[in-house]
Amino acid sequence: MKLGIAYYPEHDQSSQWAVDYKRLAEAGVTTIRIAEFAWSTIESEDGVYNWIWLDDAINLAAEFGIQVVLCTPTACPPIWLTELHPEVLPVSKDGRTVGFGARQHRSYHSSKYVEYSLRIVEKMAQRYGAHPNVIAWQLDNEFGGETKYDFGSCAKQAFSAYLENKYGTIEALNKSWGTAFWSQHYHRFEQIPLPAPVSSDVMMWHHPSLDLEFARFSSDGMVRFARLQASVLRAYIGERPITTNAFMFSWGDNVNWSEMFAELDVVGIDIYSSRPYEIAFYCDASRGVLSKPFWIMEFGASSQELGQKMELVRERGCEGFFLFKMKPFPWGQEQSNGGSELMTLTGEPSANYSVVQQYAKQHEGEAGANFLTAGSPASTSAKLGLYYHFDSSWCYQLAVGDRLNYTDYVVNTVYKSMYELHNGAIDILYSAEQIRDQEVIVIPLHTIYDSALEDRLITYVQAGGRLIVTDDLFRKNDRNVFLTEVPRLFRELFNWQDNNFIKDAILERSSVLLQHDAGEGQAWLLPRDASPDEWLGVMATVLGS
Amino acid sequence: MKLGIAYYPEHDQSSQWAVDYKRLAEAGVTTIRIAEFAWSTIESEDGVYNWIWLDDAINLAAEFGIQVVLCTPTACPPIWLTELHPEVLPVSKDGRTVGFGARQHRSYHSSKYVEYSLRIVEKMAQRYGAHPNVIAWQLDNEFGGETKYDFGSCAKQAFSAYLENKYGTIEALNKSWGTAFWSQHYHRFEQIPLPAPVSSDVMMWHHPSLDLEFARFSSDGMVRFARLQASVLRAYIGERPITTNAFMFSWGDNVNWSEMFAELDVVGIDIYSSRPYEIAFYCDASRGVLSKPFWIMEFGASSQELGQKMELVRERGCEGFFLFKMKPFPWGQEQSNGGSELMTLTGEPSANYSVVQQYAKQHEGEAGANFLTAGSPASTSAKLGLYYHFDSSWCYQLAVGDRLNYTDYVVNTVYKSMYELHNGAIDILYSAEQIRDQEVIVIPLHTIYDSALEDRLITYVQAGGRLIVTDDLFRKNDRNVFLTEVPRLFRELFNWQDNNFIKDAILERSSVLLQHDAGEGQAWLLPRDASPDEWLGVMATVLGS
Amino acid sequence: MKLGIAYYPEHDQSSQWAVDYKRLAEAGVTTIRIAEFAWSTIESEDGVYNWIWLDDAINLAAEFGIQVVLCTPTACPPIWLTELHPEVLPVSKDGRTVGFGARQHRSYHSSKYVEYSLRIVEKMAQRYGAHPNVIAWQLDNEFGGETKYDFGSCAKQAFSAYLENKYGTIEALNKSWGTAFWSQHYHRFEQIPLPAPVSSDVMMWHHPSLDLEFARFSSDGMVRFARLQASVLRAYIGERPITTNAFMFSWGDNVNWSEMFAELDVVGIDIYSSRPYEIAFYCDASRGVLSKPFWIMEFGASSQELGQKMELVRERGCEGFFLFKMKPFPWGQEQSNGGSELMTLTGEPSANYSVVQQYAKQHEGEAGANFLTAGSPASTSAKLGLYYHFDSSWCYQLAVGDRLNYTDYVVNTVYKSMYELHNGAIDILYSAEQIRDQEVIVIPLHTIYDSALEDRLITYVQAGGRLIVTDDLFRKNDRNVFLTEVPRLFRELFNWQDNNFIKDAILERSSVLLQHDAGEGQAWLLPRDASPDEWLGVMATVLGS
Repeated sequence: MKLGIAYYPEHDQSSQWAVDYKRLAEAGVTTIRIAEFAWSTIESEDGVYNWIWLDDAINLAAEFGIQVVLCTPTACPPIWLTELHPEVLPVSKDGRTVGFGARQHRSYHSSKYVEYSLRIVEKMAQRYGAHPNVIAWQLDNEFGGETKYDFGSCAKQAFSAYLENKYGTIEALNKSWGTAFWSQHYHRFEQIPLPAPVSSDVMMWHHPSLDLEFARFSSDGMVRFARLQASVLRAYIGERPITTNAFMFSWGDNVNWSEMFAELDVVGIDIYSSRPYEIAFYCDASRGVLSKPFWIMEFGASSQELGQKMELVRERGCEGFFLFKMKPFPWGQEQSNGGSELMTLTGEPSANYSVVQQYAKQHEGEAGANFLTAGSPASTSAKLGLYYHFDSSWCYQLAVGDRLNYTDYVVNTVYKSMYELHNGAIDILYSAEQIRDQEVIVIPLHTIYDSALEDRLITYVQAGGRLIVTDDLFRKNDRNVFLTEVPRLFRELFNWQDNNFIKDAILERSSVLLQHDAGEGQAWLLPRDASPDEWLGVMATVLGS
Repeated sequence: MKLGIAYYPEHDQSSQWAVDYKRLAEAGVTTIRIAEFAWSTIESEDGVYNWIWLDDAINLAAEFGIQVVLCTPTACPPIWLTELHPEVLPVSKDGRTVGFGARQHRSYHSSKYVEYSLRIVEKMAQRYGAHPNVIAWQLDNEFGGETKYDFGSCAKQAFSAYLENKYGTIEALNKSWGTAFWSQHYHRFEQIPLPAPVSSDVMMWHHPSLDLEFARFSSDGMVRFARLQASVLRAYIGERPITTNAFMFSWGDNVNWSEMFAELDVVGIDIYSSRPYEIAFYCDASRGVLSKPFWIMEFGASSQELGQKMELVRERGCEGFFLFKMKPFPWGQEQSNGGSELMTLTGEPSANYSVVQQYAKQHEGEAGANFLTAGSPASTSAKLGLYYHFDSSWCYQLAVGDRLNYTDYVVNTVYKSMYELHNGAIDILYSAEQIRDQEVIVIPLHTIYDSALEDRLITYVQAGGRLIVTDDLFRKNDRNVFLTEVPRLFRELFNWQDNNFIKDAILERSSVLLQHDAGEGQAWLLPRDASPDEWLGVMATVLGS
Repeated sequence: MKLGIAYYPEHDQSSQWAVDYKRLAEAGVTTIRIAEFAWSTIESEDGVYNWIWLDDAINLAAEFGIQVVLCTPTACPPIWLTELHPEVLPVSKDGRTVGFGARQHRSYHSSKYVEYSLRIVEKMAQRYGAHPNVIAWQLDNEFGGETKYDFGSCAKQAFSAYLENKYGTIEALNKSWGTAFWSQHYHRFEQIPLPAPVSSDVMMWHHPSLDLEFARFSSDGMVRFARLQASVLRAYIGERPITTNAFMFSWGDNVNWSEMFAELDVVGIDIYSSRPYEIAFYCDASRGVLSKPFWIMEFGASSQELGQKMELVRERGCEGFFLFKMKPFPWGQEQSNGGSELMTLTGEPSANYSVVQQYAKQHEGEAGANFLTAGSPASTSAKLGLYYHFDSSWCYQLAVGDRLNYTDYVVNTVYKSMYELHNGAIDILYSAEQIRDQEVIVIPLHTIYDSALEDRLITYVQAGGRLIVTDDLFRKNDRNVFLTEVPRLFRELFNWQDNNFIKDAILERSSVLLQHDAGEGQAWLLPRDASPDEWLGVMATVLGS
């Protein structure tokens, strides 16, 4: 596992860099991740570029044997851009423009924002794409971190186009959404509102199909923007890998990872957690997207925990590990008196410095990440698989009466029960094709129907697999509309003959509602609200069977 | 008790209707309530009407012996209307226009909204007013349900006129509101703001007289709109009764029921509760408005409870009982996997189907509602009366330091204590004239002075009645201003000689602050914050005396 | 201690005044505080003044031996002014204009508001400045009470000027704020936004340096406005003292008292509390600002507590004591059924009337306040001193991760422990110069560095003083940026040789982190989160040593 760190040369006098690089090299940190918020330092005014400092910072690093992961700085458009083209600013759900002053004040749907972003990305790629000390690229920072949705006019226009492209005719949309309900018939796609909260006196909410489409559209916008950046870079950087730093689901999972990373080279994630099972989950979830080793682009921990956690993530497939960060920020929104950095505010090595140094010494000579290949595909599946479904997660997040915290349940209840009973990595799965030779597959809260997955699950069990699902499986179609026919999986795997959904028909609750042998395998149906103890119990039975 | 159900022919292919009607007829359901949200289906574009489907749905129902209560669809203006005349949309208290996409996106004060509403009401009345299978009409849906208040320019203008009409001169308003306080003198009625929340840094609020007038004005606007619809209908429908479906107080009681139903023919209410005493309260409250049997336009219950509750409401005077609803909605804001409907999502009879069928069989041949007479007046009063006062409720809802939940207290503390000790209906009273031969009258939290009520209470007790009031009785006048003289009731009924209000003068709390014999009767004064146990204790004493 | 009361002649018919004055005189109340919200009564239209009522009210008071403190009525601009110049209205943090209808609907940064305010102040000063019965003046009412901040265009423009004046060049600001962080470089002062909340999807916040400057700027705006009023008055009123009624810190301490009262004559405060130690704190805090006796402009208490509290505040240096208020308001935002007034709603003397009357009799003949000298300087310091620092308080109020309630901690934890162990007044200190011969100085949560204070503390301890500080002492500079060097105080007083802050270096918590003898004195370092019990324990040790 290669060691890296977030470093901000633009925060210091250039005379400080050598001091810092020496410190890093002595600690065994061989990579720096730089420039992620440096747009206004690079391009201080429209079209005026300052490269010298960055040239120097990169070149000087090489002298200390430190390689560079270069970040595109697009998460923070400078004030001159927001002044020149106010349309780059998103509009929040309460109808107010998100002004300059923090970060992520950008609409992914603004063509001006995209244009200026791609311009600086291309300038950076031209200058550093072939630089021998720049070994990889990170796109932007935490897509959708603070600003996930835009309710402004750019988004409105893009959303109409998205819907038109998807539904073809407004009649098709009306029919599949059921707009006869509450007189919601639309005549034109442009009439469909963005689902900003309804400000009524008593709680009211938007059409669930609209909500789900807007969540997808918002994820799509980020994916599209990332792909545009990647394709600009690709022309200049050769085989150097491109990643981005995704944030943890527990802060909101509105970016579909499968789609985000499909055209990138390696999965990158930021992990801040003190719970080992949660860290393990995010490692497994990151490894699962492309079925190969991954990078942690940001990691924070106290000195008491850091060493242990570095071993944990290494064992679960982390090949590039970037601590956040070298120094505490004395100013700005993330100012602090320090804690997880390598240095203290006064410039002394912190307790974490020795932890990192010791790790580096212990692992000296081990094969680290080969950044240019960025993770070779895993040869075999883990014994256990857990299915994560973005659409179902969004469906539950957006629900009103039926709202639940999908991520919390999947991570803190389901995954935790697997982690506690199973020693080793677990496959986190995002698509039917990823179901291969795992012995047990768990699919909680997958409430949105997916026919490819249904087919695969049936053959999986019939061929000997063990499957655990919850009783809300396949209740809605991908328009967020309830199904009115029971899918064949229930007949095939549970011998369910009733023309009613299992959840509606079984009134007495137990920790396992149905358990059935089907072909060579077995299937279990659990109530959606099974408790952590119930999951542990069932999981113990299934793993033992 | 006639059985009906909410049905939405516009949600299905017409081929489905016969299937559904047959099901209903077999269950003993003899009435459907239709079209309540069908504006965009009926009038798909401005002035373009589609009647055939509704003709067919009504006529086909007749073939199955099913009669129709027809609803005016005005709670959901179609998008073409909101586009054509954006002024029909209300503005919420945070200054944002309530956009299209949910329901009740209409300002009762917009003349365009009223104009288009009355136009479709008249069209429906012309077409179906004399239809032999249309036996009654429901106006709109849950007036004031989601959108109670409008803070937009239409409301602003109407409110100025309301105040001018009520106060005559601005000097009179200034004087009775006490605008010398905080330099709030107004010169013209147009200057008086709508009481949207004050966005100060530390909590600030509006003038209490302004708040109370705005609450009344908002109720008046709904009453006015209902009456306009009723008068349009009346010209075409003959003796057929008109109602509307009021919603439960516990969701907000901002429509004054006495005024709303005064010019309608029968009280309709929507009841969703699993607490028998609460259901009983709403039945009594509905029966009380016009002192005659009432209808329940929507009712929801699980199969375990439905049968029992149908008996409960029948005993308390319900003549028309409409279950909500025939089928679960798979899409839209009220989508669900089902529960209280007659059918499941998959089109099978639900557990409730047999409950309803069984009820219908048991009560076959009983005199049901004669919808054309819509409830004959009750011959005698109940033994107990409980007074409900909208103005006092609003006064407490709008208060700052003194805020309390009037409805919660009246229903869950006071009424509950009466329900538990008294077997039988209780009169809910809304005016002094309704105090007749009840043996005990309870008037909690009636903080707004009413001289007619004062007179009636004095004669009531002197003639032998037993009266329970709380110590906040008659503290403010109808401008929401504290009285500065003690009303004579306290002298007459409690022999209170002090020139201070009882509440201010008695510092030691007990469950009964004063009890006095006056003439042939007795009066009890309880602290406003008497607990449920205290109410039970006092009520037991009074009922036993 | 002179007795006064808030009185509102404009609320009554003039025939009532003699009745009221007689009542007051009989109770021993010799001063009335009037006109504080009477702008619209005095100036009913732009430039139209009505003085007769006020002439009469003042003159009639003299006949009853009652003197007048006259208030400038600027806290409530009349509606004609807000109509004529809507720019006088402030804009709230959610971007909405604070409309007419409550109070403090004024922007201190609006030149129109200031112009009209000074005009009425001058008119009042011309008419009553030399009136023999007008003995003192109160400016406005509770500056910053409800509306502390203005996010409108007047404030925006004034804030740019404030920053330019303070930083000189935008480069200086960029450098000291560290705007390289997150690409926040500014080119011009006009670009810097007002720190209204960022409406992002996930919590985001503004730059801490911006936040702190805006807090200072907002305080400055109020101070500037007060000084302008005072200088207008001064030309007409001779030696008559000017004060204003500050509100308690626990409701927000956004006005820097040292600056507010520096150019006024006497400190005035409004106290509403039932906790003796809290009342004592506010007395000590008021006495401390100018190191001399103070006035309480508003005080509220029940009759059970009033007498005792009047003794308490007298002992702590209150020379003028104004009860709030003579009568309950029946209408308006502060309507109530009464409690702490001298009269009840029905015009009878309340329980408080006899308390006041008894106090007046007991203290008859004692030297009261000489209002024309308004408090002679205190000759000696108290034994104990507690330092209150507005900047540090604001820093903590505005923090995100590190937020804490400074005032709550200082009053309810630190001061309370001192109050419980020390019989007598305590000096509340606001500047290094106020540290004189106190035996013990306590400086909690003083996180903003102050070199003058540092110097003074070192010499104070070395000369024999005992000093208690918390471990967050001097962590940030006055731009709200963390220091990167340990200030010399730690070496001098605690013999701290480490190049790391104590808080970061000492990982094991104890109730006293460090205790050291330095010169003739001693110093204690406590953890910032020391509990009330820990403070009591340490304080007992220090006071005993």
